[in-house]
Amino acid sequence: MTRLELFEQIRAKRSFLCVGLDSDVAKIPAHLRGAEHPLFEFNRAIIDATAPYAVAYKPNLAFYEGGREGDFVRTCEYVRERYPEILVIADAKRGDIGNTSEMYARAFFGDRMAVGTADGLVGATNATSGLVDAVTLAPYMGRDTVEPFLRCDGKWAVVLALTSNPSADDFETLRLEGGELLWQRVLRTAAGWGTADNMMFVVGATRAEMLAEVRAIVPDHFLLVPGVGAQGGDLESVARYGMNSTCGLLVNSSRGVIYASSGVDFAEAAAMEAQKLQAGMAALLDRFLP
Amino acid sequence: MTRLELFEQIRAKRSFLCVGLDSDVAKIPAHLRGAEHPLFEFNRAIIDATAPYAVAYKPNLAFYEGGREGDFVRTCEYVRERYPEILVIADAKRGDIGNTSEMYARAFFGDRMAVGTADGLVGATNATSGLVDAVTLAPYMGRDTVEPFLRCDGKWAVVLALTSNPSADDFETLRLEGGELLWQRVLRTAAGWGTADNMMFVVGATRAEMLAEVRAIVPDHFLLVPGVGAQGGDLESVARYGMNSTCGLLVNSSRGVIYASSGVDFAEAAAMEAQKLQAGMAALLDRFLP
Repeated sequence: MTRLELFEQIRAKRSFLCVGLDSDVAKIPAHLRGAEHPLFEFNRAIIDATAPYAVAYKPNLAFYEGGREGDFVRTCEYVRERYPEILVIADAKRGDIGNTSEMYARAFFGDRMAVGTADGLVGATNATSGLVDAVTLAPYMGRDTVEPFLRCDGKWAVVLALTSNPSADDFETLRLEGGELLWQRVLRTAAGWGTADNMMFVVGATRAEMLAEVRAIVPDHFLLVPGVGAQGGDLESVARYGMNSTCGLLVNSSRGVIYASSGVDFAEAAAMEAQKLQAGMAALLDRFLP
Repeated sequence: MTRLELFEQIRAKRSFLCVGLDSDVAKIPAHLRGAEHPLFEFNRAIIDATAPYAVAYKPNLAFYEGGREGDFVRTCEYVRERYPEILVIADAKRGDIGNTSEMYARAFFGDRMAVGTADGLVGATNATSGLVDAVTLAPYMGRDTVEPFLRCDGKWAVVLALTSNPSADDFETLRLEGGELLWQRVLRTAAGWGTADNMMFVVGATRAEMLAEVRAIVPDHFLLVPGVGAQGGDLESVARYGMNSTCGLLVNSSRGVIYASSGVDFAEAAAMEAQKLQAGMAALLDRFLP
C-alpha cells in the first residue's frame, strides 16, 4: 500500500485509527475459547465490527507465537481478502543481521521477494502480495536490520524510535556526546535508510509533547503512535504536534477497543469504542490537517 | 539448565561450541528439499553428527518463520529429548513491552510459566520443561523487555550488547554523555536486572579485543559470541580476553559448520568442522581456564 493510498483511506474514513490485535486466549470471551482457532474467531468478529472506523490492524506476534497454529496467518489473510484497503502491520519488533533479516522480510512480505518458499508465518499463506504490509523493527543492530524490509514496493519498515513503556528511559532517552538523545539519533539516522514512502516510526503517545521534536526530524513520515487508551496518551496532543499534510499518524488502540466487553457483545462494544475514537479523529482531521 | 550444569558439560566435552542452526531451504542439500520437514531433517542429521562436540544449539527463528510449520519446534524437541544436556537457544532477538514480552516468554519457555496455552511456536510442543533454555533479546526498549524472561528457573535471557554485523556501529558504539559507549551502558544496566545465573550477553567475536572491556563490566556472565568463522572472529583472542572461571563463553559457528558440504556427506562434513573447533577449544580451555 502506498502512502497516497493510505492517506486516501484516512480521508475517506475520517479516521487514523489502528486497532491492535493483542488477542490473548486468557482474555477473549469465554464462549470463543473452545473454537478450533479461538484467536482468529475473536479477531474476525473484531475486524468485521471495527473495519468502518479503522485504517490499519496491528496483530502483535507475541500473542500468536504461544497460541494455536495459523491464527496469525488467518487473521492477516482475512483482512487482505475482505478489507484490502486496510493496512496490516505485523507488530513483530524483529531485528537481526543482514542475511537473517532478509529471511524475516521474506516470511512477512512473501512472494514479493520472489522466494520459492513463502509458506508464511505461524501457518501457511497463499497471499499473492505478501502476508502483511508492514513490520515493526528494533533498531539496535543498525541499518542491516532494516534494509531488507525496504526492498519491496508498497511495503513498510516501521522502526522503533521512542516507545511508551515504563522502561523506555533505560536507553532510548540517554543523551549522546554532542547533546542528541538516542531516540533522536535513531530517528535521524534511520530516516536516511529509506523514504517517507517505505518507512514509518513508532513514537509513543505518552510523550505527545515530544512529537514536535519528532516532526522537526522527520516532517513527512507516518508515525505509528501506540499508547492512546490503556497506556494513557492524549489524542488531541498527538494530532496537534504530530499531524502533517498527509495526516502522517496512525494512532493505535489495542486493549481499549478489543476488550471493551468480555461478554457475547464484545464485537459491538469494540465497534462502539472504535467509533468513539474515529469521531474524535474526524474532528482532529478537520482542525489540524493543513 | 543451571550455570553449573552448563560448565560441567563444557568440561566433559572439552568444548564451548554453539552450533547455529541457520538452516535455509535454499542452502541445504538438494536431496533433502523434497522432505515433508526439510529443515528438521537437515537439523536432525547435523545435530546427531555434531552433538559430541557442541554444548549448545542455536536455531535462528528467521529461518523457520518463512519455512514449513513445525520445523523449529521439532528441532528443539529433538535436542531436548535426545541430548537433554545440550542448551537450546532460540535466537529470536525479541523485545517488547512488559505484558507482551511475557507472552513471548510463555511461548518459548512454555509450561514453566504455568500457562494454559503452551502450544508453542511455529508448531505445537509437548515439551514438559519448555521449548528452549534461552532466548536472545534486543535491549532497546529497556528492562520491560527482559524481565519476563528472568522468572523461570533454569532459563536464560540472552541480551544483545555488541553485535558483529557491519552496521553495529550505527548505534551500539555511540558515545554517551559522560564517556561510556551505548553497548557498555547496555551491559552495565542490563546486568543489574538479573544474575550470572539467568542472563547471558551477546558479544561479537569480530571485536575480540573488546572482550577485556566486557569482562571488566560483567566478569561472571556467560557470553554468547557469534562471528567466529563466516564473520571473521579469532577463537584464540576470544578465549584470551573472554574466558572466566566457569569458561563463560559459548562461541557460535553457523554457516562454517552446517554448510561445510552441500552434498550427501553434509553431516559428516559438519562433524569434521565441529570437531576441529572442539579440538581448538579443548586446547584453549587447558591454556586459559583458571
